[in-house]
This record gives sequence, C-alpha cells and structure tokens, in this order.
Amino acid sequence: MSSTQPPINFTRGVPADESYPLEQVADCAGSVLTGKYGTLSMQYGSSLGFLPLREWLAAQHNVTPDHVMLGNGSLQLVDFLAHGLLEPGDLVLVESPTYDRTLTLLRRAGARVQGIPLESDGPDIAALEALLQQATPKLIYLITDFQNPSGVTTSLRKRQRIVELAEQYGFGLIEDAPYRPLRYRGQAIPTLHELAPKRTLHMSSFTKQISPGVRVGYMVGEPARIKQLAKVAEDTYIAPNVLGQAIVYEFCDRGLLEPQLERLRKLYGARLEAIGAALRAELPEARWIEPDGGFFLSVWLPQGVSNAELRQRAAEVKLNLTDGRAFFPNANDGDRFLRLPFCALTADQIKEGVRRLASIAG
Amino acid sequence: MSSTQPPINFTRGVPADESYPLEQVADCAGSVLTGKYGTLSMQYGSSLGFLPLREWLAAQHNVTPDHVMLGNGSLQLVDFLAHGLLEPGDLVLVESPTYDRTLTLLRRAGARVQGIPLESDGPDIAALEALLQQATPKLIYLITDFQNPSGVTTSLRKRQRIVELAEQYGFGLIEDAPYRPLRYRGQAIPTLHELAPKRTLHMSSFTKQISPGVRVGYMVGEPARIKQLAKVAEDTYIAPNVLGQAIVYEFCDRGLLEPQLERLRKLYGARLEAIGAALRAELPEARWIEPDGGFFLSVWLPQGVSNAELRQRAAEVKLNLTDGRAFFPNANDGDRFLRLPFCALTADQIKEGVRRLASIAG
Repeated sequence: MSSTQPPINFTRGVPADESYPLEQVADCAGSVLTGKYGTLSMQYGSSLGFLPLREWLAAQHNVTPDHVMLGNGSLQLVDFLAHGLLEPGDLVLVESPTYDRTLTLLRRAGARVQGIPLESDGPDIAALEALLQQATPKLIYLITDFQNPSGVTTSLRKRQRIVELAEQYGFGLIEDAPYRPLRYRGQAIPTLHELAPKRTLHMSSFTKQISPGVRVGYMVGEPARIKQLAKVAEDTYIAPNVLGQAIVYEFCDRGLLEPQLERLRKLYGARLEAIGAALRAELPEARWIEPDGGFFLSVWLPQGVSNAELRQRAAEVKLNLTDGRAFFPNANDGDRFLRLPFCALTADQIKEGVRRLASIAG
Repeated sequence: MSSTQPPINFTRGVPADESYPLEQVADCAGSVLTGKYGTLSMQYGSSLGFLPLREWLAAQHNVTPDHVMLGNGSLQLVDFLAHGLLEPGDLVLVESPTYDRTLTLLRRAGARVQGIPLESDGPDIAALEALLQQATPKLIYLITDFQNPSGVTTSLRKRQRIVELAEQYGFGLIEDAPYRPLRYRGQAIPTLHELAPKRTLHMSSFTKQISPGVRVGYMVGEPARIKQLAKVAEDTYIAPNVLGQAIVYEFCDRGLLEPQLERLRKLYGARLEAIGAALRAELPEARWIEPDGGFFLSVWLPQGVSNAELRQRAAEVKLNLTDGRAFFPNANDGDRFLRLPFCALTADQIKEGVRRLASIAG
C-alpha cells in the first residue's frame, strides 16, 4: 500500500457532504427571517418546539399537534425519555446490537439494560419471551427500520408480536426510526406506532433527511406523555433551536422534502448496490446483513478474528473501522461484529475499502 | 379597570421582540450556507461547537480556543456541569435569590443546595464564611452582573473576597454572566474568571445579545474541565446546533455585534430609566434594587404582603407577576420578593404596569 493513498473511513454514520441542499436551506432561512415567522424564530419558543412544524409533522403521522414534540436532534429526546420515564434500576430492553449512544444515555440514567439478540428479520422473539418471563421491563427500545448498527429491518410479523407482548405485559415501546424515509428497495412496513399508537413513542429526525446541522429531531406519542417530556425539556434548555425548526418547516412547507428524499435514495441506493457487489466479489464467504435502506450494512467476522486484531491490521492498510463491541449491551457479544456505514463514501471508495477489508480478513 | 385594557406582563425575562436584527441575521445565514462554511454548518460538528466561533470568543476572553465550549443556550451547559462535575449529595452554594432554572437542574442532579443571602452589592460575605465553617461546597454558582432575578451586581471587593475563599477552601466558581454586555451606566467590574481563571467556569450566551432563537451559549474555563464537559455534551446530543453557531460567528466576524449591543443598551437603558422613574413616582416607600444593566429590577414588598395575595390582586387589574418564591433555595424566604423584568416592555407599558402595581401594593 502506498503511503500517499488516502484512508477509507468505515466509521461514523453521517450523511454525505454532497447531500446537503445548501442553496435551498439558505433560501428558506432568508424567507423565515425576513417573513412572518422572523421574530418568532428569534424569540424563546415553547419547549415543545415550533408549532407550524409540529402541525406539519402531525399531519404526516395522522395525529393532532399535541402528539408531537421537537428537540435538538433525536438523541437528546432519548435523554429526556431517560430523565422523564425511568427511575434508577428500571429495566430497559434493547436489541443486541443497538445504537451505542442510546446505551450510554440509558446507563447514565441508571437503567438496567438487557439485550434481545437481533436476527436478520428483527429481535429474537423466543429470547424476548424468555426475558419477559424473568422480569417486565419499563420500556423496550427498538430501531425497526434499517437498524443502526446492523441494517436489520424488523418484519411485520415480529412487529405484531412485539405489540401483543407490550399489551400483555404492559411495557412501553420506543421506536427510533430516523432511517425510515431512506428505503432504497422493497415496501415500507407499518411502524410500531401505527400498530400500537397508545403504547409507542415514535422518534425520528431531519438529520438524515436534510442535515445534522439544523439539529431537529422529533417524537410522536400520547399527549400526556409528550407534555411530561416537554417539562423535562423546558427544565433542561427552556426552548430548542427555534430558528433551525422554522427553516425545516419552510423547507417542508415548500414541498422540498420529498424531492430531497428522492435525491438521497438515488445517491445512497447506488452506494448500497456498490457495497453489496464489492462484498460478493471480495469476501464471498463472509456473513453479512444487506439492508434495504438506511446507512449501515453489518458483517460478522469469521470465528477466531477479533475486532481489536482486525482494527489493528486495518489501520496498517489505512482502513478505519469502528469497534463493534460498543453496540452490544454485553460488549463481548460484539467481538466479531463490524458495522460498515456506506452512505458517506463514493462507490470507488466503497470498492477500495472492501478490497482492503478482504486483504486483512479474507 | 376597563376589561378591554391589555394585560401588562412583568413575568418572563426575554429580549424585546423589536431588538432582533432580522435582516442582518438573514444575510449572515445566506453567507454561511452558500459560502465556505456551508457544508461544515450542515454536517455533524464537534461537541465543543463551531471552531471559528470558539476562536473568536477565545480572543475576546484572552484564552486559547481549547478554553471555550459552545452549547445550545447556556442553561444546557449548567446541566452538563451538573452531570459532569457533581455527584448526588454534593453541596452547591448559590445566591439567595438565584436563577430558578439553575436551582431545578442542580436539584435534578441530586445536589444539596444552600443559599447565601444576597445584599445590594453581592453575596453576604459573613454569611458565606459561616456556611464555609460548616462544610466545603463543591461549587458556588454566582450571577455576578445584573443578577437574575434581583438586578444586583457583586462589588469588586466582594468578588476578590470570594476568590480568596475559593483558594482557601478549594471550591470551584461558576460565573453565569449573560447580562454582562448589557451595562447601561457605570463601569464594568472584572469578572471572577479574570480574577481567578483556574478556579472559574465563566458562562454566557448570545441569547440576550442577538437572540434566543439562535440557541448559542458558551463556557470559558480550564481546558481539562472543558474537555470533560464536552464528553458529557457528546453523550447527550452528539453535536450542538452548528448552523446557529456559524450564523453567530458570521455576525461577530462582520463586526455587527458591538453596534447591536449599542442599540440594545440604548433601547433597554431608556426602559431602566422609565421603571426607576415610575417606582419613584408611584411607590416611593417601596424598597427596590435598581440595577445598572441587564433585564431585572427587584422589589421587596412591605411586611405583611405575601406574593400569593399580591399576584391574586394583580390578576384582577390585569397585571401578571412571577412568584418570587421560585428564586429562593428556601421558598419561604421569597414571600415578599418581586422580580420586574423591564426590557420587553415599552416605557408606556412600564409606567402603566407600575401604576397598577401601586394600586394594589401601595
């Protein structure tokens, strides 16, 4: 490997720099600030967020605006959930693997976290039922569409069963669905929120749809629950970033979101094809989960190859990988797990990255 | 009182709607999004915040940029402090009265909070020394300039003594100074951070200087401490609202901040004159603290008049008042305390508001 060759980063799951609709956002910002919402976008707002955007989202989700709360990105909403709904010692179940930052926040709030092994069509239901025999959790946190980090989408049958179990045992469902609008093939599956609106807090954000920089996440759920979480939000930051929310509203209200999503599906869909093709060509014996959307594909390394070893060898060929262990409630379960975010790399970078991966793990 | 007369709100301490430089902010937003920082302002950033603004602030405070962290408003930075620096049961001293939202966050983090009675020139030093005889606090939280809610500015002599005590007993100082640039008369006094840079975390924000809607607060302190708090921030929200920070940077870099502050000092200074004149005319026997800047003037009600009674009578004359008790670590200490925010009211509204107050409390 030439020392001048640039590194390939299969690390953070961020949108592609070239995906941002800069001119459109600039134009929306100008309209907001010099238009009828100018002063409102500069003043303190409600901790629930900018009302016109809440109304727009409510219409999308077939609910009234009192079901919708906005925040500075959706991770912070997880923190509000942890503050507002959990007591130290409360049991929360998550998929294993799951989003590492949620694990951190749940643990910071003092929750006991247990993992439900994830299969290629969603959580292992037999394992979930066995866990429920032992103790009833307060909440189950699930990333149902194109999961971070695995890429798994939970099947309709499993979603229905999870909802039945929630009714039977009386626990709440947190559905984190930021990747849902980014489906590159196949048909959308009903959300947990559509199947069980009273039991589910559904979360998403504009981070993957427009930009992380606007910092707008949201949550849809029962009004009493939303009100309780809005109080936590008010205590924490008085009001969220109203200007960013007003800009996002203007973007949506002008009908710019769906064309933007179409562009993203085309851009990222081609990259998903590229990583699938590269894996089939370079690492045909590997076991991987190829998603139908989102940002992540995941690979299970062959028996005997550990994450630490692999990342060390990867660094030598200028390939940066994330430690898969961080995504597992029990870190050791992730020793052979590798998350490959494919959206912020070009097809050529993906091909070269998988080639380097094969050269050290093949 | 005519039922058609509009209410007067002496409640929230928010900037005046007419203070926002909408056209300038719009122009800055356009430049950021279509200029060299466009992509950077849309992508995830560092949890420390947008580097050019950190550099700009570092120069203002005579420190290097690793001393500066940005957040989504300064209240959230108080939450990070509480998470990062306090263990449940830790003792924190605050002025009595103090900012009610800080009390909420300190208590949410499990801190024990004790109040130092506030005099017209700052904390009662003898009372502070007596408290220090009993137990050493982890932190003292002080609002040194034009305090919320009282309007008090701590004298140089008291600042020096507080710094000496911090050295002697080994506690940290949190200096919350969002109103400091809004001095309408008299001379600025050195900050605690200037007197004791290694012991002090100095906080401020652009909320009162440009707008709450941009949601940009900041903290200046020792790099090791800043790094520790940036980790708490990353765990909580990955990155703050980079777009708002980039817009504020553009505003500052263009030299627009000082003229904006001059406009605010003129606008709000006249309102401070108006409320002083109204009190002297309408409530000459009342005891009040008239500040030299900031948003708040405070009144002590005559013996025998309670907050609850007064607010009930006030509602009858369409005067909305805040419950003074919320600002005191021991709520009962605030039964006769009244905070009057004067910046978001016109001189006529102020005059009419004080007239109504006199009609029920005189």
